[in-house]
Amino acid sequence: MDPNAKRKALRLITYGLYVATSRDGDDFAAGTINWVSQSSFAPPLVMAGIKADSRLHDVIAASHVFAIHIVGKDQKDFATTFFKGAERQGDKLTGYRFEEGSTGAPILIDAPAWFECRVVDRIARGDHTIYGGEVVNAGMRRDAEPLTLRDTAFFYGG
Amino acid sequence: MDPNAKRKALRLITYGLYVATSRDGDDFAAGTINWVSQSSFAPPLVMAGIKADSRLHDVIAASHVFAIHIVGKDQKDFATTFFKGAERQGDKLTGYRFEEGSTGAPILIDAPAWFECRVVDRIARGDHTIYGGEVVNAGMRRDAEPLTLRDTAFFYGG
Repeated sequence: MDPNAKRKALRLITYGLYVATSRDGDDFAAGTINWVSQSSFAPPLVMAGIKADSRLHDVIAASHVFAIHIVGKDQKDFATTFFKGAERQGDKLTGYRFEEGSTGAPILIDAPAWFECRVVDRIARGDHTIYGGEVVNAGMRRDAEPLTLRDTAFFYGG
Repeated sequence: MDPNAKRKALRLITYGLYVATSRDGDDFAAGTINWVSQSSFAPPLVMAGIKADSRLHDVIAASHVFAIHIVGKDQKDFATTFFKGAERQGDKLTGYRFEEGSTGAPILIDAPAWFECRVVDRIARGDHTIYGGEVVNAGMRRDAEPLTLRDTAFFYGG
């Protein structure tokens, strides 16, 4: 396999940018991710690739829940803030206020839309784990056009 | 869960549009899909959600291989052609010429880029199966901006 062709072809997959969160007791975690897709209509399932050596990964492994937030076109700063994880201060994660979701995962109120999942499947292979989640709650705060990875200067894939 | 919020939030996930193919002996199959994401850098893995009651699904289940083709911004017709599967006529799938890939999967020469996978994992849950594939071959024919689902009038998610 030509590694250059592999990298270029895989980088032509289209992605959004999302902030994922989870919570296990007093342990809060967040991260910016792009490897996300729905994987079933009924029941509603999603699949998310989460970096295996991240805190977010370990907190999801322990709590079996996660929330995924849509990032609006005008919210690049919101997304980049969580590139390096999150610190909780009271009702905020790195400065962004959250509410407690029905799963216990923190729901960041700046996101125009979000959904919460319970982990029902898991594939631990390679440098990321695929978490298969059933969507158990969702919310819309406002209409928004989503930020895409292509809108930014970032790449994550290849 | 509010089903309307669930549908709207899930439809804010960003997708490309891809033509997936597979082959098991004389059995050729193709389909247009959008639930695709990379899931590991090393080894290079992807995850694809394939409709459980489709011929493509069954041919992949039998062959354990599939190819995914990037669709260019100007190739909406190429994508829509495979909404309803494919018929093989000689070296063509529904009018589009293919070559045999290293896995045996047909590689459609109109696509600007493609990658071939061997199935290494599988989650059969809900109305689609998640096929986890290791990328074993890839090619670039020309630079192209990828067609996104948002570029089209289609929805597949929610």
